[in-house]
Amino acid sequence: MLPYKTLIKIDRELSISLYIQLCNAFITLITKGLLSPYDKLPSSRKLSELLIINRNTIKLAFEELVSQGWAESRPRKGIFVMATLPLTNVNEKDISNTQNLDKNVSFKWKNNYIETVLLSNLQKASLAINDGFPDVRLAPVDILMREYRSISGKNFGKGFLNYGNPMGSEKLRIAFSNYLSDTRGIHANLENILITRGSQMGIYLATQLILNPLENVVVGYTNYFAADATFKLMGSNLIRIPIDDKGMDIDYLEEVLKTKKIKLVYVIPHHHSPTTVTLSMERRLKLLNLAKQYQFAIIEDDYDFDFHYSSKPFLPLSSIDFNKNVIYTGSLCKIFAPALRIGFLVGPEKFIQKAASLRRLIDRQGDSLLEESVAELFNSGEMKRHFRKSLKLYHKRRDVFCDVLKTNFSNHINFEIPQGGLAIWAGFDETINLPKIAELAFKKGLYINDGSYYKNEKFNANFIRMGFASLNEDEIYRSLDILKKIL
Amino acid sequence: MLPYKTLIKIDRELSISLYIQLCNAFITLITKGLLSPYDKLPSSRKLSELLIINRNTIKLAFEELVSQGWAESRPRKGIFVMATLPLTNVNEKDISNTQNLDKNVSFKWKNNYIETVLLSNLQKASLAINDGFPDVRLAPVDILMREYRSISGKNFGKGFLNYGNPMGSEKLRIAFSNYLSDTRGIHANLENILITRGSQMGIYLATQLILNPLENVVVGYTNYFAADATFKLMGSNLIRIPIDDKGMDIDYLEEVLKTKKIKLVYVIPHHHSPTTVTLSMERRLKLLNLAKQYQFAIIEDDYDFDFHYSSKPFLPLSSIDFNKNVIYTGSLCKIFAPALRIGFLVGPEKFIQKAASLRRLIDRQGDSLLEESVAELFNSGEMKRHFRKSLKLYHKRRDVFCDVLKTNFSNHINFEIPQGGLAIWAGFDETINLPKIAELAFKKGLYINDGSYYKNEKFNANFIRMGFASLNEDEIYRSLDILKKIL
Repeated sequence: MLPYKTLIKIDRELSISLYIQLCNAFITLITKGLLSPYDKLPSSRKLSELLIINRNTIKLAFEELVSQGWAESRPRKGIFVMATLPLTNVNEKDISNTQNLDKNVSFKWKNNYIETVLLSNLQKASLAINDGFPDVRLAPVDILMREYRSISGKNFGKGFLNYGNPMGSEKLRIAFSNYLSDTRGIHANLENILITRGSQMGIYLATQLILNPLENVVVGYTNYFAADATFKLMGSNLIRIPIDDKGMDIDYLEEVLKTKKIKLVYVIPHHHSPTTVTLSMERRLKLLNLAKQYQFAIIEDDYDFDFHYSSKPFLPLSSIDFNKNVIYTGSLCKIFAPALRIGFLVGPEKFIQKAASLRRLIDRQGDSLLEESVAELFNSGEMKRHFRKSLKLYHKRRDVFCDVLKTNFSNHINFEIPQGGLAIWAGFDETINLPKIAELAFKKGLYINDGSYYKNEKFNANFIRMGFASLNEDEIYRSLDILKKIL
Repeated sequence: MLPYKTLIKIDRELSISLYIQLCNAFITLITKGLLSPYDKLPSSRKLSELLIINRNTIKLAFEELVSQGWAESRPRKGIFVMATLPLTNVNEKDISNTQNLDKNVSFKWKNNYIETVLLSNLQKASLAINDGFPDVRLAPVDILMREYRSISGKNFGKGFLNYGNPMGSEKLRIAFSNYLSDTRGIHANLENILITRGSQMGIYLATQLILNPLENVVVGYTNYFAADATFKLMGSNLIRIPIDDKGMDIDYLEEVLKTKKIKLVYVIPHHHSPTTVTLSMERRLKLLNLAKQYQFAIIEDDYDFDFHYSSKPFLPLSSIDFNKNVIYTGSLCKIFAPALRIGFLVGPEKFIQKAASLRRLIDRQGDSLLEESVAELFNSGEMKRHFRKSLKLYHKRRDVFCDVLKTNFSNHINFEIPQGGLAIWAGFDETINLPKIAELAFKKGLYINDGSYYKNEKFNANFIRMGFASLNEDEIYRSLDILKKIL
């Protein structure tokens, strides 16, 4: 007889009745091949003693096994595993593989998919000079939680817990409509705004709707790697355009347009990632003219609009896009907290409708409670206060960080003070081996990027982004001190 | 002179300084064509009086306009709109179109995309016989909020607000691993589980990874419409297989497999949507054997596993899938609340890795606070208590609903009492015009489906799903009373 006491695990706390648990345990034994067709099951009396379970429960379990067709009852002989079971041949080797589900997978999936970095040393280090993330310690989480409680406590049938509109909360779309108009001169109606889960979802939705395999998409020489990965996912052809101190070289783009059909241009006009440069006004206008002439779409990723230290934000392309070529995407993840995934996609009404239909199939809808609460933060002015407070603090941190770099690293690091954003684009001396430095720094408790994020077939320079915003002054000194010692 | 007082809107509450707001206002006037090249700007003195803004601020704004290249200063003459601006020709017609952004859109997007229903009368009616949704009034929101407060209040640097793993919270993956093992006999390691935002995201991710355009995917004669839409999105070919009282006809599938290459089979083994039938054990085993033999993948959508009133859940295909053909997807949205988007995708480790890479590009990651809090609800036993409580209540509601249908609708509605799930598959008399009934019911405050969700090129019968779970007994009587009067 099999060691049933060991093999059969019963949990009286479960909401599933005991006899069903027992029945399922036998099914598992059968399908795993530990019980084979024609095998006799133990008597209900014996099993009852072994497992300390009421005998009637055991009988019910056996009846269930029989009624499901796993076993048959032979009068005066007992219960037997059904002789005619259409069982897959399972042998011991297969069973031992249940801990290693990758072997012998018998269907195929796409393996040409781009690999993205899922986790890095970033989360493990005590200090981190990251890619340019906000300081989540500043996020007004208490105030957000107050809104959560207030909304979830309201006695209106808890409708916010039901299925909602894939376009997102109407209240938040109204708040964004006002915010985009006040800060950016973008005049968008409710129907032009889809609430996303961050800039990245905006890029993904727009790309899925616009790009086809083999079509050409224009990006920077070096570019935000997750946008590149999204375009590659579609099987599109990436055409790289130089970036200089005025942003993407639009004259170069014009030359490309004369010989190649371009479907989409991806730009990050404020503080291009990774280089931090801002696209000049002349180039913005020229880009819009070219879009009209050559009928391509523009994804304007303005994730960094809110951070301008010298107080000179240009109006987005979207605000002066009278020929409707621009899809505008932005996010609160950089201003509030990366894990609170809220962003917006702005575009022509019918395009946004399609994007909502697609989004319906991806994750159905956003988090209503979060969306409603964030709307309240906008309406109550809390968001504005938080914007102002963060901006002031990040401005200070940028200055301190740049001062230390200028003073102590002038032999090794070359950089321009960024006008905005949360990071510096730091060019390291060619003799410096960045992966090696990153490794040594990590051993001393400091994460810094090894430069691989920014490299591609056209760009191989010795640069990394150095995010200053998430470090307070003390942390800035300590981080750069570690780096200094290593260099 | 233009009516600047009306045209220029300044908000002293904004974090953007006044002179930049002023500068941007002029840029908008220029790009909208209200100010043209060569036009003279008003003097700083005049504007200062008009707008009641300090004259130095006006001067700063003009300097900024000049430095950005929008205007030029001519000594002793004033400030003029730059003569050489590369402006797009904008005329009045274009400007009036800013309220109607769809006209003259100058790029193309995919229009063959499937349209999905974004909003219906469902949200507007005071009573609703829906597709089979839970009663959100039962959701333990207070307890969830307690967890939110507890986690967000902990003083560990608020790391949960930072970027996290696209696979989802480790704590929740552990909780799901235990839950899947206890309730379903699925033995999944952390690496086999991706936290999704509901079953639909599981379907979407798996489909994107497995299906290519023109490949064949097998679904039911009638099928969950959002799954069909997801497969159509990929440009795949849907092959429909009959569904009878034992679920999908696997013998029929076997015949199809002899002549056609099938890449993917989509099954809803418990309470198939919409028909509510359960796939029999024999067919489950045969399906697994066929998958091994013909090397196709199976998406097992088990969204409804938790609701079994006659206490007879079969083990999922995934639990006896020793040849690794099955991708398993499920959700808490039906047990907790639709708007709390949490689900799981279970499969081979390398497949799940790819799914996480793809998910990284879609929305970066889930909501960490929600994921951590739900993990606590599992660990504290609250989730189990909620499962038990809902199950008992829904059981009662099913019985009441079915009783009323049997007693008062036997001439009009034909149905089987469902063994589980949250809805009845109701066949209406052929003489009954469902869209008409739905319209009349809505006028009396009752939403019922008009049947269009379930129809397709192969299925045109007079059926709808009647969800009973979200209505209390009084509401059941009132809803069916309205329906009775209309019929």
